[in-house]
Amino acid sequence: MARERLSLYDTTLRDGAQTHGVDFSVEDKWLLAQQLDVLGIDYIEGGYPGANPTDTRLFAEARELGHARLTAFGMTKRPGRSLANDPGFQALLTAKTGAICLVGKTWDFHVKVALGTSLEENIEGIRESVAAVVASGREALLDCEHFFDGYKANPDYALRCAKAAYEAGARWVVLCDTNGGTLPEEIETVVAEVVTHIPGDHVGIHAHNDTDNGVANSLAAVRAGARQIQGTLNGLGERCGNANLTSIIPTLMLKSDYALRFETSITPEKLRTLTHASRILDELLNRAPNRHAPYVGESAFAHKGGIHVSAVQKDPRTYEHVPPEAVGNRRKLLVSDQAGRSNILAELERIGIAVPKDDPRIARLLDEVKEREAAGYAYEAADASFELLARRMLGNVPQFFDVDSFRVTVERRHNAFGDLVTVSEATVKVRIDGETFLSAAEGNGPVNALDNALRKDLGPYQSYIDDLELVDYKVRILTGGTDAVTRVLIESRDSGGNRWFTVGVSPNIVDASFEALLDSINYKLIRDGASAA
Amino acid sequence: MARERLSLYDTTLRDGAQTHGVDFSVEDKWLLAQQLDVLGIDYIEGGYPGANPTDTRLFAEARELGHARLTAFGMTKRPGRSLANDPGFQALLTAKTGAICLVGKTWDFHVKVALGTSLEENIEGIRESVAAVVASGREALLDCEHFFDGYKANPDYALRCAKAAYEAGARWVVLCDTNGGTLPEEIETVVAEVVTHIPGDHVGIHAHNDTDNGVANSLAAVRAGARQIQGTLNGLGERCGNANLTSIIPTLMLKSDYALRFETSITPEKLRTLTHASRILDELLNRAPNRHAPYVGESAFAHKGGIHVSAVQKDPRTYEHVPPEAVGNRRKLLVSDQAGRSNILAELERIGIAVPKDDPRIARLLDEVKEREAAGYAYEAADASFELLARRMLGNVPQFFDVDSFRVTVERRHNAFGDLVTVSEATVKVRIDGETFLSAAEGNGPVNALDNALRKDLGPYQSYIDDLELVDYKVRILTGGTDAVTRVLIESRDSGGNRWFTVGVSPNIVDASFEALLDSINYKLIRDGASAA
Repeated sequence: MARERLSLYDTTLRDGAQTHGVDFSVEDKWLLAQQLDVLGIDYIEGGYPGANPTDTRLFAEARELGHARLTAFGMTKRPGRSLANDPGFQALLTAKTGAICLVGKTWDFHVKVALGTSLEENIEGIRESVAAVVASGREALLDCEHFFDGYKANPDYALRCAKAAYEAGARWVVLCDTNGGTLPEEIETVVAEVVTHIPGDHVGIHAHNDTDNGVANSLAAVRAGARQIQGTLNGLGERCGNANLTSIIPTLMLKSDYALRFETSITPEKLRTLTHASRILDELLNRAPNRHAPYVGESAFAHKGGIHVSAVQKDPRTYEHVPPEAVGNRRKLLVSDQAGRSNILAELERIGIAVPKDDPRIARLLDEVKEREAAGYAYEAADASFELLARRMLGNVPQFFDVDSFRVTVERRHNAFGDLVTVSEATVKVRIDGETFLSAAEGNGPVNALDNALRKDLGPYQSYIDDLELVDYKVRILTGGTDAVTRVLIESRDSGGNRWFTVGVSPNIVDASFEALLDSINYKLIRDGASAA
Repeated sequence: MARERLSLYDTTLRDGAQTHGVDFSVEDKWLLAQQLDVLGIDYIEGGYPGANPTDTRLFAEARELGHARLTAFGMTKRPGRSLANDPGFQALLTAKTGAICLVGKTWDFHVKVALGTSLEENIEGIRESVAAVVASGREALLDCEHFFDGYKANPDYALRCAKAAYEAGARWVVLCDTNGGTLPEEIETVVAEVVTHIPGDHVGIHAHNDTDNGVANSLAAVRAGARQIQGTLNGLGERCGNANLTSIIPTLMLKSDYALRFETSITPEKLRTLTHASRILDELLNRAPNRHAPYVGESAFAHKGGIHVSAVQKDPRTYEHVPPEAVGNRRKLLVSDQAGRSNILAELERIGIAVPKDDPRIARLLDEVKEREAAGYAYEAADASFELLARRMLGNVPQFFDVDSFRVTVERRHNAFGDLVTVSEATVKVRIDGETFLSAAEGNGPVNALDNALRKDLGPYQSYIDDLELVDYKVRILTGGTDAVTRVLIESRDSGGNRWFTVGVSPNIVDASFEALLDSINYKLIRDGASAA
């Protein structure tokens, strides 16, 4: 049976860019556009020409993409003006793109309250604007703002707006749940009605996530007959985000309900770039990726309990709904106090340490992990510390250097101007192959000062750690009471884009931090192949 | 028309605790259980007695809750054993709870691959185990593991398992989408079939979020006839999380599709504690709250400037699907934040500070709070620091003492026996009414040493702080702006059972801790009526 074609429309660069704190440069936008193009998205909405210098430059350049069609976004003409007299609309027409998506109002309440025009003039504005885009030789789309709220309030009027766009030549008429409050069953009912008036292969859905149903609403619209889905990577978007394409795409391709009925431009190979695309966006936004993101999150295929792990090893379908590789993700067997031998063995294999299954050191390593986790270590969150521990117990970690002593001072005092200031200083004495390196440094806090001093001069190893950077530092106090200990988790990265996590535990926060810092440095030295001096 | 009753079952403390990095203490669990009880949840699944010391202690104590029923979780008896011979099952029966939820297998593939028993023996195990719980005088529930995958593979067998539990007296038979891969339309179809065999008011849904449909799946099950929803606060849970009750509850109560047909134990007043409950969980986990969380996120009702803001001010329905106050959240506008003002007024009233509504100092306090929160302070989690700030701005906090200087040293060195030891020392110089108090103390870390030195001799105030005790100390690194800052939250208590929270923010962890310590002491002095020396 021939499968029907679904069109995928990404608006990360426009609606996603509305998000508080998001500020893409032109280069960011091109980088993301290329990634989306590689993925196989059909339309990439780049922004709003004329609205800001970034978007204006983006559309003035309009570089080449492979498959995807770069799309400009803007409003239908303003009420009370002619097209020629509306500078916003004219700016839109200068965009060097093959497609233009207009947004128009379709909720009578909004036309009156927010736009302050008459219902008929609004419809006429939609019709004229769409026709002008078509006449300019471009593909036209209409985003019907607040379509579902509008339909509930005045179905005839909302439908007339949508039909006006279709009749004026719009390739896609996109039903937007602008406030994000519509539920899947309502979406399904309304879309089913709309496609009796406009052919489904001209109808799109643009959902938001305000009830946590952004994905479900998009899928409901497809089931009811819509054939274009608009959304964003990682569900980026203002308030609670837009419909998350990173979740929708794998469902369309991997779940038989959809995969047997529909096809998109995304091939199975391209789908394997999805996790990477998702992470690239987080990198650009300098955000920690959501570990729990469906399909692409670091924990999406993580298994913790011993029973789960051994079942997954017998047959992954026991606790996995799709194979992680299909979206470019990977399985993660967590090492934790619930873990058994099977977790440890699987983890050693992944790290690349070959050990016979019956090696008695495995049992000792497992005991050591359990004992340390009972004392507060968290190896499932600190893969690099686990690797170091494992390599140490298996006897193949060189002693690169020894720390003889350190001293950290934090002092608050009045400075010469009478202001209270706080100064942090550290000295560290390191011994490498008989030679002593004494370094001192300041920092904006005790741990930062210590880190600066430690990494100031590591003699023969200095070149290995020059690109080591601390990305994140987390502290948790475990078990309130007399024997409270501090757990420090450090995330590090290097210029090659590698990231690793280390852990330290002690009643003293400085000691715990120092332990995690040392693990981070030792891990880097081992991974980069340093040999003991 | 009489509305049907929906039962709400929270498993944050059990299934949520499976999450990567989550490690609740017994006190954490009680704090959350109380919050969930206040919210109006019907069942609170506390954990798995016998599985670990925390859960065993929790169920041995089993403190009183108001409305909610504390529930213990465990497995049906193991194949090949009698009930009396299964120590896990017997441990479960010792739990001091009125309800026990068992998990049993219903997917034939799993029974064979993971359990390694016969299909008939598995059904018999379910029947016997449920009957034993009922015979012990408790309410029994059965979580049907992998029910939907099982139903797709072998509908007769899955149904027979579920029916066996119902016939053996289970109050609720809960259909679990354990791998989280089932889609809403499948859930709806299968549940509709199940409720022709088991009455819907005995059928529950337990969904996961692996396709981003955890909420939609739960709602689909309700539409098809299920009458209990299991989920977690903030969707906490392994992999991609469990069905998010924080999203589901407001939809059930605020959306007419559900609100007109169903009722729960949550009243409109209780619903207003939802945002607070969500934030409390994040605080306990030391996680940054998800800004974009539906209903409760900080950005869920945020509107950027311009057209949206003025439209929302004309009529909030233009860009809001529900009123933010309904869930205890608030609108966020870039201009004149009315919600903020009313929050502040409400908070002052709660503390017992009488101020006229139009006092210009209110606006200044609001500005100060906003500015400080932008810099990293979290007053929602630090009631005592907020009270101090408010009292200071309203001009009625005495300056009890001044800290002239402090100095903290952490030193690691070899002791006389050649072992590496770390010693933390602090000195603090305090001035009280012209007199100087210089104190020195050791501690197990820099903050503890500083705290010990500060509280060693506060002259005339010493008697007020002798019973002050630090209960908890949390650190978070915030990377919001250009420079990372450290936020320290301190929980204190005294011998009268009072507890209060204070906050400090600085690039330097010692400074931030010191600020929170000072707030804690000053708060205690004010509350206990000390007068300035």
